[in-house]
Amino acid sequence: MNSRLNQLTNAMSLQNWDVLLITDPKHVYYLTGFASDPHERFLGLLLTRSDEPVLIVPALDGDAAAAASSISTIITHQDTDNPYELLRGQIKGSIGTMALEKDQLTVSRYEQLQQFLPAKSYKDAGQVLRDMRVRKSEDEITIMKQAVALVEEVLAQGLKQVKIGMREIELVAELEYLMKKLGADGPSFDTMVLSGTNTALPHGVPGSRQIQEGDLLMFDLGVFAGGYASDITRTFAVGNISPEQERIYNTVLEANEAAIRAVRPGVTYGSIDNAARTVIDTAGYGPAFLHRLGHGLGMDVHEYPSVHGLNQDILQPGAVFTIEPGIYIPGVGGVRIEDDVLVTDNGVEVLTSFPKQLTVIG
Amino acid sequence: MNSRLNQLTNAMSLQNWDVLLITDPKHVYYLTGFASDPHERFLGLLLTRSDEPVLIVPALDGDAAAAASSISTIITHQDTDNPYELLRGQIKGSIGTMALEKDQLTVSRYEQLQQFLPAKSYKDAGQVLRDMRVRKSEDEITIMKQAVALVEEVLAQGLKQVKIGMREIELVAELEYLMKKLGADGPSFDTMVLSGTNTALPHGVPGSRQIQEGDLLMFDLGVFAGGYASDITRTFAVGNISPEQERIYNTVLEANEAAIRAVRPGVTYGSIDNAARTVIDTAGYGPAFLHRLGHGLGMDVHEYPSVHGLNQDILQPGAVFTIEPGIYIPGVGGVRIEDDVLVTDNGVEVLTSFPKQLTVIG
Repeated sequence: MNSRLNQLTNAMSLQNWDVLLITDPKHVYYLTGFASDPHERFLGLLLTRSDEPVLIVPALDGDAAAAASSISTIITHQDTDNPYELLRGQIKGSIGTMALEKDQLTVSRYEQLQQFLPAKSYKDAGQVLRDMRVRKSEDEITIMKQAVALVEEVLAQGLKQVKIGMREIELVAELEYLMKKLGADGPSFDTMVLSGTNTALPHGVPGSRQIQEGDLLMFDLGVFAGGYASDITRTFAVGNISPEQERIYNTVLEANEAAIRAVRPGVTYGSIDNAARTVIDTAGYGPAFLHRLGHGLGMDVHEYPSVHGLNQDILQPGAVFTIEPGIYIPGVGGVRIEDDVLVTDNGVEVLTSFPKQLTVIG
Repeated sequence: MNSRLNQLTNAMSLQNWDVLLITDPKHVYYLTGFASDPHERFLGLLLTRSDEPVLIVPALDGDAAAAASSISTIITHQDTDNPYELLRGQIKGSIGTMALEKDQLTVSRYEQLQQFLPAKSYKDAGQVLRDMRVRKSEDEITIMKQAVALVEEVLAQGLKQVKIGMREIELVAELEYLMKKLGADGPSFDTMVLSGTNTALPHGVPGSRQIQEGDLLMFDLGVFAGGYASDITRTFAVGNISPEQERIYNTVLEANEAAIRAVRPGVTYGSIDNAARTVIDTAGYGPAFLHRLGHGLGMDVHEYPSVHGLNQDILQPGAVFTIEPGIYIPGVGGVRIEDDVLVTDNGVEVLTSFPKQLTVIG
């Protein structure tokens, strides 16, 4: 934690920021070790270049913050306090440049800051924080591998429960029960089980449709474990599927594998998306792959980088992201195959290991 | 839906807003019938005073939006598009006043708007939307009663599973499994089960502590059903508890009941908080009730109003909020008793009906 704070204080000097205010609860956790969900209440970590960091938390979280965080100066606020005024009291003199998380801070809070904690200029701290978080340490990677192993065990055990006639929501319940039972902190997003033509909805919501012979059956699930997220999608055949469904499956699998082969330090995220998209375009399904290839993964299940065709950012060792091409044909069905990959010094390590060859169940 | 849009268009005229941009997914759902979680992608409903509303959604949600929403003009954007530029193309001429959800919009998006969809001034639409949402219709109340009945059935069935030696997280898994099984869309927040001295942490996280004789055992849970949230807290005694724990329990119960008796149209939210706080202060536990009394409940589990002592807003018929006083004594334990209440034309209807007298289990 302290090395992260030091790294950030160094970045503040380089950027000429006088004050940095962190309000994203995940960033506060990342930097202090204190995890919390303040709901709409104010949580903030105030960094200056000369003074000790100050953590401000809702009164009811004061003891938990003192127990969990590495910060010695903790101030608490009641619902009736103005937290911005309390923070102002912690800073000597006027503020030149203040950095903020512009991707996270709301306009309302920004206007409060401008009123009660005025600075000459406001900069975006997003890139500096993203650059820190994108490079996972060995400790972080160890935890992420555990989160992946856990969700794969959930999927393996859940798959054994699938029976013809079962409803999508029953499978969701079973999977989320297994997550808790196997020790996850919880799902990292709403667990998705879609069947039959529902699989053609890439963000469909599980419902009461019953699984039938001839269905494609898609699972998209992840867990939080140790503060980090995993995320995996696998699609299965329930009994015999049609030649077109099989062709879609094999095209998506080929696209997934082409993208994985393209991963190495120094290339762009756009090139990874393109590697998958070219396979799908060539097979004639281009318009049916209507989302980006993937997203960064870490303390958030969707974090920097966004893996899409125009992203010219460069892959660097330690980055973890998803590779999840999909093809969705209304009336026929959809297939998505998603892996979590780590950029290594020389290439790629695929963190997910659940089999990807077309598997018939039920 | 159309009456909600009409109400909003009327408000735009009154406020002299030329354009209103809605980006909160819950507000889009409330106004159009289209429910979605766009993650970090852009979702927006653009209203002007003269033209038809325009819904802009990520490409992968286009079909779902067309099927579910009441809006006839739907435009879709790919991850590589600039959605603000697409929206600019929908508006004729320059924009005078644009209203935004300042409590929800991020500074980054605000800066994008200022660049690509510039207006002479930006107003906050929050109050207008809150005023609409706080007055629940009869249809909404019917759905909310179902969400309450569902979570109370979950609690009743879950309570039967409690055994000495069970871990907090095992009970959480059981409760969340029951939610799915009984037909909820899911938990409305992270289900909380705390035991023993852990109950003294008002936002504690369930862990592997095993339930013991003499524990206070606190359940705080809710479900989403039909798009609306319920939220209930009950605290139980596992076998014999101490006289101090019992005194705390009865004080919280008295505070809960005093607050409920104070609910009627025309009084302030602050007076409801004060009704509970006075009971707890008088019993000598004032400093141990370290959070507000409650929060609005509806499509969000925490929504307007915040029920705290300084809130001078007036209760009006149709408002639904929680009443959840608590006392937390480190080393001894905590008690919270939470009900969901509806302001009626003459007084109050308590939506939750789970028994509140001190109950010994296990």
